[in-house]
Amino acid sequence: MNQNFEALNHRIKKFCADRDWSQFHDPKNLAISLQLEASEVLELFQWTKDNQAKQGKEEEMKDELADVLYWLIMLSNHYSIDLVAALDKKMDKNEEKYPIEKAKGSSAKYNEL
Amino acid sequence: MNQNFEALNHRIKKFCADRDWSQFHDPKNLAISLQLEASEVLELFQWTKDNQAKQGKEEEMKDELADVLYWLIMLSNHYSIDLVAALDKKMDKNEEKYPIEKAKGSSAKYNEL
Amino acid sequence: MNQNFEALNHRIKKFCADRDWSQFHDPKNLAISLQLEASEVLELFQWTKDNQAKQGKEEEMKDELADVLYWLIMLSNHYSIDLVAALDKKMDKNEEKYPIEKAKGSSAKYNEL
Amino acid sequence: MNQNFEALNHRIKKFCADRDWSQFHDPKNLAISLQLEASEVLELFQWTKDNQAKQGKEEEMKDELADVLYWLIMLSNHYSIDLVAALDKKMDKNEEKYPIEKAKGSSAKYNEL
Repeated sequence: MNQNFEALNHRIKKFCADRDWSQFHDPKNLAISLQLEASEVLELFQWTKDNQAKQGKEEEMKDELADVLYWLIMLSNHYSIDLVAALDKKMDKNEEKYPIEKAKGSSAKYNEL
Repeated sequence: MNQNFEALNHRIKKFCADRDWSQFHDPKNLAISLQLEASEVLELFQWTKDNQAKQGKEEEMKDELADVLYWLIMLSNHYSIDLVAALDKKMDKNEEKYPIEKAKGSSAKYNEL
Repeated sequence: MNQNFEALNHRIKKFCADRDWSQFHDPKNLAISLQLEASEVLELFQWTKDNQAKQGKEEEMKDELADVLYWLIMLSNHYSIDLVAALDKKMDKNEEKYPIEKAKGSSAKYNEL
Repeated sequence: MNQNFEALNHRIKKFCADRDWSQFHDPKNLAISLQLEASEVLELFQWTKDNQAKQGKEEEMKDELADVLYWLIMLSNHYSIDLVAALDKKMDKNEEKYPIEKAKGSSAKYNEL
């Protein structure tokens, strides 16, 4: 329960290796799969008027977000990208681009602050 | 360096809280942002013929995958979903649906194995 | 002005033929381009709260919708699909699936009417 | 058969008006529907290695492309955009940006020709 990210990543790598699936997993098709799963998340919001998801979709939401993470990890592994480190580094830049005193309560882009 | 997932998630929550941004982050717009970033990943493969990304896009790839993770975490947090646990649970099902002896070397869907 | 669809399609075919571009236009990349342009349309609605597009985007909207049509026509031509006839045929089915007396004022799916 | 675009558009407008559906068709949800249908086209290419669609999907291809056109027309009508005229105008620019003598046989972007 609440298994950590590295252990999960290791499990996914082993899952694919055990099944000899790397032959199918070229990066272009991984990127398409990522895009398709992101669309399935979006579909949970189709036709709502209040900026919320459709009602009664809690379990599906969990499943679809997990699917996006799956392909995101697969694609990162293909390129030997440390996903968590990559976003952590990006947060360094975000914190610089959006200083608290300027960005607080504003939805402006950093170059318009 | 190689900061863990929980610490990264905490950093993102603090980043948004410090800037009072939750007012902008309704889930439908988060889902749209997730979809748009997944498309930016896909764009790195536009017009290639060999199922690989365009050349010289290593840094962009890292950045775009990080962006997808950012919105994925934001959306998960909105619904108080433990993303890592959700995918870990899904892997339980995947391992059942795709037993090694049947799935090895096959690209068939589980219901066609 | 208000040129008809067949003339437009002919113009697009000639445009590509004159430039010897069919070698680049495999259908998978056309489908990716279609998806990417649809995402650019969606981007015009990112972060709005009222289900409308961002303000001042009238010209961009026109341009992005035209781009979607361009790739839609390219992909249809690749498969020798008569796009207008295909949708017209689909409307036959839609009219059957959603009889006026049942569907009027309802957002239910046809199988829930 | 091979009904023209204007007649098709008129049919779609009448189809929605007869069912009093405009109340559901805010433009943001139309744009989401457009994006989702473009993803369904892309799905027909998931996991192929040769840049072609999966085999035996001819009828689905026709249906999915028709669905994209449906939402494209719906969104254009919402903004009173003449879709055919918009793309025709865009072709004027394309022909200027890609002069035949420079663009022939080249996949370079216009600013790199």
